[in-house]
Amino acid sequence: MEFDLIEQYFKPLSQTTRPGDLAIGDDGALITPPENSQLVVVTDTLVSGVHFLAQANPYDIGWKSLAVNLSDLAAMGAQPAFYSLALTLPSADPPWLEAFSRGLHDCAKPYAMPLIGGDTTRGPLCISVTAQAWVPKGEALLRSRAKLGDDIYVSGAIGEAGLGLMLAKAGGLTSSTQEDYALTRLNRPQARVSLGLALRNLASSAIDVSDGLLADLNHILQASNLGAQLYLADIPLSDAVKNWAQANPIQALNAGDDYELCFTANPNQRQVIKDLSGLLGLPIHRIGKIRQAPGLVVEGLVGDKDVRGYEHF
Amino acid sequence: MEFDLIEQYFKPLSQTTRPGDLAIGDDGALITPPENSQLVVVTDTLVSGVHFLAQANPYDIGWKSLAVNLSDLAAMGAQPAFYSLALTLPSADPPWLEAFSRGLHDCAKPYAMPLIGGDTTRGPLCISVTAQAWVPKGEALLRSRAKLGDDIYVSGAIGEAGLGLMLAKAGGLTSSTQEDYALTRLNRPQARVSLGLALRNLASSAIDVSDGLLADLNHILQASNLGAQLYLADIPLSDAVKNWAQANPIQALNAGDDYELCFTANPNQRQVIKDLSGLLGLPIHRIGKIRQAPGLVVEGLVGDKDVRGYEHF
Repeated sequence: MEFDLIEQYFKPLSQTTRPGDLAIGDDGALITPPENSQLVVVTDTLVSGVHFLAQANPYDIGWKSLAVNLSDLAAMGAQPAFYSLALTLPSADPPWLEAFSRGLHDCAKPYAMPLIGGDTTRGPLCISVTAQAWVPKGEALLRSRAKLGDDIYVSGAIGEAGLGLMLAKAGGLTSSTQEDYALTRLNRPQARVSLGLALRNLASSAIDVSDGLLADLNHILQASNLGAQLYLADIPLSDAVKNWAQANPIQALNAGDDYELCFTANPNQRQVIKDLSGLLGLPIHRIGKIRQAPGLVVEGLVGDKDVRGYEHF
Repeated sequence: MEFDLIEQYFKPLSQTTRPGDLAIGDDGALITPPENSQLVVVTDTLVSGVHFLAQANPYDIGWKSLAVNLSDLAAMGAQPAFYSLALTLPSADPPWLEAFSRGLHDCAKPYAMPLIGGDTTRGPLCISVTAQAWVPKGEALLRSRAKLGDDIYVSGAIGEAGLGLMLAKAGGLTSSTQEDYALTRLNRPQARVSLGLALRNLASSAIDVSDGLLADLNHILQASNLGAQLYLADIPLSDAVKNWAQANPIQALNAGDDYELCFTANPNQRQVIKDLSGLLGLPIHRIGKIRQAPGLVVEGLVGDKDVRGYEHF
C-alpha cells in the first residue's frame, strides 16, 4: 500500500533519547516524565486553503505546522519535548512528503523534539500537530495571573505576517527587504521558546499572539478580570507594516500569525526584561499597562476608542 | 464568529480533577503526572468517506473517534487519562455537534477522561483524537516481547465489524439480531481497556486488532522476530460472520475495526486467563501458538497456506 511508504519519511524524525521510551512502532508512544514536572499539551490544525495557500511550499507547511504549536508551548513557559502528527493528504506524493518532513525536522531540531507517533490518512490536506512539553510543577505561565499595575510587553514586531499574507495572496511579489521579511515571517514563524522559558517566575501572565495582538491580549484581560491601556506609538511596527496599515493601524494589531509573546510583569522587573532582551537578541517592547477598568484602550488610535466590540471579541 | 460557539459543546467535556491541572482555557493544557508512571500517547484520525460513511450518525462518529484510540491505549495496558480533539468540519451545525459531543462524552465517561484541548477548524470533515494514558513505569504491554511457545489469545469475536461494514454499505438492513450486533460493533466499538489493564505482568505482548487479526498479529511476530500457528477452528467467529465469510474465511481474519486485543502469554497462565475471562464477562479464546519459524500459518484454511504475502503485509 502506498501509504505504508509514507512512514519512511517520518521514521527518521522519531528518535527518542531516554532509555525505556518508545516513539513510533507500537500501539502508542511511551514517555517517561521528568521529576516534579507538569505536562503541557497543545494542538493546532492547519487546513489547506484556510491556514495556508494551496500552492504553499511543503517545507514551509511542515515548518509552520510545528512552529504554531511551539508558540503555544512557549506561552506556557514550557520546554518542548515531543509531538504527534495527524496528517491527512490526498495522495502519497514523495517530493511533497520529503520537503514537508524536512520542514518539520528543521523546526524541531533546536529542541531535539522527536515525532513520537500519529496517523496518516487519505483525504483532503489537513495537518494536525499535538505538541507536548514539560514545565516545573507550578511554574507554567498562565493567562489568568496579570496584576493591576503590571506592564504589558510584546516581543519582536507586530503585523508582519498580516502584511506577508496580503503579499502572498497578491502573488508573492515583494519590493523591499522588509516585504521579503514579512513573507518569511508568515511562512516560517519563529516560536519564542527561549523567551517563554526565561519568563517563568518573571512574567505574571503570557499568551502567544496568533489571532492578533488585541484579541490575544484580551484573553489575558478576560482571564485576569482586568483591563488594559496600550500606547500605539510604543507598539513595534516596521515601516513596511506602518505603510500597509497607514489608513487603519488597527488592522496590524488585529492581523494574525505573529507568533510573538505578549506578557505582563511587575514594573520592578523592567531592568531584568531589558537585559533579557539583550541576552536573547530579541526586541521586547513595553506597550502598555494593566488597569482596573475593563476593556482595552489603545491610546493614539483615532478617537482613542475602546477596542472591545471589534469583530474578534 | 460561529466557530466560537462550538466551544460550548466541548467545554462540558473538559473537567479535570487534579488541583493545579488545567484543561481548555489557556495556551495549553497542564497535567500533573502520577508518581512512577510513563505516559502513553496515541493518535487516530477518522476521515469522512474513508473511516465512516458520510451519512453516519454523528453520535457514533464521536463515540468511535475516541474508542479507536482507547483501543490502542488498552493494547499498551494503560489507564486512559485525557484526550485532545482536532476537529475539522465544513460548518458549525448545532444538532450534529450536539450528537457528536455526546458520543465523545459517553465513550469517555467510564474513564472520567477529560477533553483537555484541541483545535476546531473549517474544512472537509476530519476528526483526529490524541488520547493519553498512564502506565506504571516499565509495565506497558509491548508488541516486541512475545516468547517462543507462548499461547496466542484474542478477546471477543472477530470479523463482526467487517460484516457490519458490508451491511452498512448495503443500506443497513439487517435480518437477524446477530447482524444488528455486527452493525453496532462497527459503529460503537468497545475498547478492551479493563482487559488491557489486567494483562499487565500477565501477557508477554499485546496489540489491538484494528487492521484485521492476521495483519495485527503479524506486527507482534515481526516485532518479536518469531512466527505463529493459528487454528481456524479456535478463532471466535459468530454464525453470521461464518455465513458471510463462508467462501473465504480469510476475509473475516483480514477485516478491520474489531478493536479486540490479541495477546500472547506463557502456557502456565492458562487458568489465570480463563478466570480473567469470567471475571470480565468477556470471552477470551486461545487461538494458536508462537513458534520459531517465521510467518503466520492458519491451520484449517484451504491448503493450510502461509498467509504472509496477503495484501496487508
